[in-house]
Amino acid sequence: MKTKSEEKRQAIVNEAAQAFRAMGFERTSMSEICSRVGGSKATIYNYFPSKEELFAEVILQSTQAEFDAVHACIDKSTGDIADSLRTFGKKLLSFLYSHEIQASRHMAIAQAKHSELGRVIYERGVMRSQKLVAEFLKESMAAGKLRQAPPEIATRHLISLLESEFIDRFLFHLSTEELTEAEITEATTRAIEVFMAAYAPKP
Amino acid sequence: MKTKSEEKRQAIVNEAAQAFRAMGFERTSMSEICSRVGGSKATIYNYFPSKEELFAEVILQSTQAEFDAVHACIDKSTGDIADSLRTFGKKLLSFLYSHEIQASRHMAIAQAKHSELGRVIYERGVMRSQKLVAEFLKESMAAGKLRQAPPEIATRHLISLLESEFIDRFLFHLSTEELTEAEITEATTRAIEVFMAAYAPKP
Repeated sequence: MKTKSEEKRQAIVNEAAQAFRAMGFERTSMSEICSRVGGSKATIYNYFPSKEELFAEVILQSTQAEFDAVHACIDKSTGDIADSLRTFGKKLLSFLYSHEIQASRHMAIAQAKHSELGRVIYERGVMRSQKLVAEFLKESMAAGKLRQAPPEIATRHLISLLESEFIDRFLFHLSTEELTEAEITEATTRAIEVFMAAYAPKP
Repeated sequence: MKTKSEEKRQAIVNEAAQAFRAMGFERTSMSEICSRVGGSKATIYNYFPSKEELFAEVILQSTQAEFDAVHACIDKSTGDIADSLRTFGKKLLSFLYSHEIQASRHMAIAQAKHSELGRVIYERGVMRSQKLVAEFLKESMAAGKLRQAPPEIATRHLISLLESEFIDRFLFHLSTEELTEAEITEATTRAIEVFMAAYAPKP
């Protein structure tokens, strides 16, 4: 059962989600959210120290299920490592290039200079994802499925390779279309081929 | 000798550079630039169809010498391919993570949603760079120094690997420090190791 304090916190997140969706991040003020929730501004700040933290919470909650699904498939893998990485790669790209995540990531990047939003999204989304991947790669190295290497570096190589064919079109808004399944499958296959050439155990 | 029209064009670029530096991209209007240059607004639009095009020209001119230096080292390489790629990689990262280029890239990315600046910078900077790299990789494949593969894909793998350890801190403004020489050398060595494992000719 949820406590009253948890209920209040969730009510704030729900109202904030609606406000951000209706007006965008910049034009939504904490006062606006406060008037939707009812109660004092101090109460909201009690739960969320800044608008950035609150926005990050909204994004992270709304994408939690998908985020978990992306990372679940790498946790329990026991079979062929290249297969596992391809499955993970495809799920990751479908997730990152969904309209919702593209928009949130763009906002975090665009706001990063002016606010803490970039850092919050990085720490609670990107970094958390990379830690899960690094953990999986480390276990795979220990099991002899990959050669020994710093898992954090291997993770960055892996993710960058997976995104390599799409990162420019995303960053520079050349297209905000979601990727097709064929595009994802082909790019993932090529990326994992490169990754495995470098990280497969030496024969 | 420059023609009068070239002189006029360059005068516009010079005045615009000063205005952008003083006031930033968003707060600088074409009217402001016009009043600095003298003459009619129609004249400026005759040379540059939009403020984005003019801004891109300012950035590209101010970084032309460095851009050329980065790409010159890959053109005339005749020796060991991994060495050439490491030399190129280090120059590319020094260039991309200089304060000036970080700032311009951030602006292009942040503005991309609202204006054509993202596309212009992409086409005249990023894409031009990738074409030069792809040309070099294609020649190296033809010379048997790399295995046969689509050069455009190999280029994206190469550049993404080179940036993999720094892209997040850049995008999310975790640090805007320039990279140290040691950071660049180590990351480049690791990236080229992965690239060569995948793209070296099959023995």
